[in-house]
Amino acid sequence: MTGPMTGKGPRVTQSKNRDEFARIARFFAPLAAAYPGAFGLRDDAAILAPSAGAELVVTTDTIVEGVHYIGDEAPALIAAKLLRVNLSDLAAMGARPRAYTLNIALPAKVDDSWLAGFSAGLAADQEAYAITLIGGDSVATPGPATLSLTAFGEVPAGAALRRDAARIGDAVYVSGTIGDGALGLRAARGVLPGLAAPDAAALIARYREPQPRTMLGPRLRGLAHAAADISDGLVADLGHIAEASGVSAVVRADAVPLSPAARAALAAAPGLLAVVLGGGDDYELIFTAPRSAAPALQALARELDLPIAAIGEIASGAGVRVLDARGAPMTIARAGYVHGTGA
Amino acid sequence: MTGPMTGKGPRVTQSKNRDEFARIARFFAPLAAAYPGAFGLRDDAAILAPSAGAELVVTTDTIVEGVHYIGDEAPALIAAKLLRVNLSDLAAMGARPRAYTLNIALPAKVDDSWLAGFSAGLAADQEAYAITLIGGDSVATPGPATLSLTAFGEVPAGAALRRDAARIGDAVYVSGTIGDGALGLRAARGVLPGLAAPDAAALIARYREPQPRTMLGPRLRGLAHAAADISDGLVADLGHIAEASGVSAVVRADAVPLSPAARAALAAAPGLLAVVLGGGDDYELIFTAPRSAAPALQALARELDLPIAAIGEIASGAGVRVLDARGAPMTIARAGYVHGTGA
Repeated sequence: MTGPMTGKGPRVTQSKNRDEFARIARFFAPLAAAYPGAFGLRDDAAILAPSAGAELVVTTDTIVEGVHYIGDEAPALIAAKLLRVNLSDLAAMGARPRAYTLNIALPAKVDDSWLAGFSAGLAADQEAYAITLIGGDSVATPGPATLSLTAFGEVPAGAALRRDAARIGDAVYVSGTIGDGALGLRAARGVLPGLAAPDAAALIARYREPQPRTMLGPRLRGLAHAAADISDGLVADLGHIAEASGVSAVVRADAVPLSPAARAALAAAPGLLAVVLGGGDDYELIFTAPRSAAPALQALARELDLPIAAIGEIASGAGVRVLDARGAPMTIARAGYVHGTGA
Repeated sequence: MTGPMTGKGPRVTQSKNRDEFARIARFFAPLAAAYPGAFGLRDDAAILAPSAGAELVVTTDTIVEGVHYIGDEAPALIAAKLLRVNLSDLAAMGARPRAYTLNIALPAKVDDSWLAGFSAGLAADQEAYAITLIGGDSVATPGPATLSLTAFGEVPAGAALRRDAARIGDAVYVSGTIGDGALGLRAARGVLPGLAAPDAAALIARYREPQPRTMLGPRLRGLAHAAADISDGLVADLGHIAEASGVSAVVRADAVPLSPAARAALAAAPGLLAVVLGGGDDYELIFTAPRSAAPALQALARELDLPIAAIGEIASGAGVRVLDARGAPMTIARAGYVHGTGA
């Protein structure tokens, strides 16, 4: 089946054709059906009113076929990743997910079965994360698929977690395990030789299906000082917190929590520690909190069944220092780029 | 000068590199500097709180080089058009502009001078329309530039204008003049032969630089029943109102207001009336209002120095009928596509 936009070609106008309206009605309007303010995606805009006493948190990401995803992934996975990287940003602000808009520029090769899978992926995540589509745009492109999603969350007014609130003496914490995303990308590309198949599969799943910490983030309000999600890499994102807060950070490499699969990968190739600490796509939360918050954080970790580990501390000065098991400084290059790591 | 993203190539990760951060800091952070909740574009998300008693209106559009614009336009014009088509949607909802987010996927050929022009265009329109950048994303693409903008406006809670509120007996009104956008596209492509140069220039300017009716839209709250902006074409957008409202509409073709340039074009080629009524990209408002609102609307037109013309009425039934000067029905094809009009 060819896509509904086949053969339309350049038109240099904003107006939509019948096929585009039909596509929106078929694949996307059902995702907005439960939200009256979306007007069935048939009005000029949507209405979004935060709850009483709340303000909105807005975040947006764009992914391009061949740049941010390979293109042969199941469309439901592409949809889930696009949504979840945004939900991770909301979590980092302490916000609860509320709604999203979607902008899709699709090549003619995209057919109804791809759209069905893509919208099914969104539908499943709408259920999982209590979020709803409220608007968007769908256009044709002669280039690669280009997908933007803008997510809206809610926080009590003034309570959003920020990057610029770390204080000297804070401990640095991370949720979950670190490095699986970057190692998973390598495993997916076949550049983690010698890894057992189940370990490789576990890492690839972490790369392909991030688990945004949407339950944890809002619970950190009042406990954490500064927070970010780990999308650019642990060292880079902690560096963003340090820079915005005017402080420095120290990380003890051996305190960084690793999954069993990541441990196996590091046992085979200890040099991958740089990938773990420097690579991106973990979508865990990294945050700073006073020492006094430690008991509450451990109780929260048990309640949510999500490990929270202290990995370092905030000090005066600038930058991020990583110390090895003997306390010696390590150099961690930005390892978000496969071609830059030699892995 | 080559663009900062040259040579980065596919990376299949969400993490950004230093050049991308530098680009955002240089060209886009200044556009968000006046808005504290944007955190200098350096946090995970932005904060957006509507004023007391207000709710947000959200709209978004994507434009692709070679599809929605030719690519050789001045980058400031591309930026202005992208912003303004969204502001037009806000106006159609009766919302005042407030803020926007921007997602740009740019090919390597895009250099700093293009970015400087693009961001200068945004800066000028931020001033003109009292709107500010609050967030976004910037990525590389191997394809054409793909630009998405999401605009946020405000209306008093429950007061947004909608498409589904037309009532039988309403008059149908339009602001400004109709058809200039579609004729301007033809003039820009050189398919309006015989038109005097000043007329062609006037039409092209209307196509390239839409004037969203941001002053009119909010003033229509309480006067208009249903409203939309004319982006798909007068007949199509009135059809959207009629369909959503469960009514029909009649348009008297000779009551549709034309600019002097459009009159000149029609005098040379009367068949272009179909382009005027069926073409898109006008970004005027079309709305329905009870007859009793006529004096208030004419006073408003004088105050805003913007013509408001009654062009038809709402009746029972379905669909849009266009009547010629003798009252005979005309057939208006959707003329949003250059290749579909024979012009």
